[in-house]
Amino acid sequence: MAVEELTRTERESWLSALKTWSLRDDEKAIQRKIEFENFREAFAFMTKVAMIAEKQDHHPEWFNVYNRVEITLTTHDAGEGGGLSLRDTKMAKAIDALVQ
Amino acid sequence: MAVEELTRTERESWLSALKTWSLRDDEKAIQRKIEFENFREAFAFMTKVAMIAEKQDHHPEWFNVYNRVEITLTTHDAGEGGGLSLRDTKMAKAIDALVQ
Repeated sequence: MAVEELTRTERESWLSALKTWSLRDDEKAIQRKIEFENFREAFAFMTKVAMIAEKQDHHPEWFNVYNRVEITLTTHDAGEGGGLSLRDTKMAKAIDALVQ
Repeated sequence: MAVEELTRTERESWLSALKTWSLRDDEKAIQRKIEFENFREAFAFMTKVAMIAEKQDHHPEWFNVYNRVEITLTTHDAGEGGGLSLRDTKMAKAIDALVQ
């Protein structure tokens, strides 16, 4: 099922609000890197994000090593070969709320 | 604290036993990709691995997107700039036991 991709104006508006996230070079995804005290804290955070992902039926691409978590949000069903949608900005805000 | 790196003979012996893992090109890490039914199953697996990692005080480098998990095991304190040690083979066996 196709999902509506954000327009350039919408994308820029969201990114100016979500200062913690950066646009990937291909402009099809947003990314954030977060450092925690240790692995336990990093994985506790990931567990909370996993719950949100299941609830929103929208899942991150993410990498973890010890206390670092790198998250990429994109919508595979938006645009040509993926793109940003409101699903991504909604999840980005939910993630930010966990680590403020 | 330096950790003893596996010799080439030991490495080859372990890899022939751990057929599910492959040696990274630089020979300093082993890697395994696993696919699950869905994100929930993938993250449930990751949670079990996280518990093992904390107990063994040895942590994976891993990537997840939806039902796929890619795991890299290496010992930063072994060899020159990291290498394989018994910590990695121990964890690899523990991970394999979860997904047999």
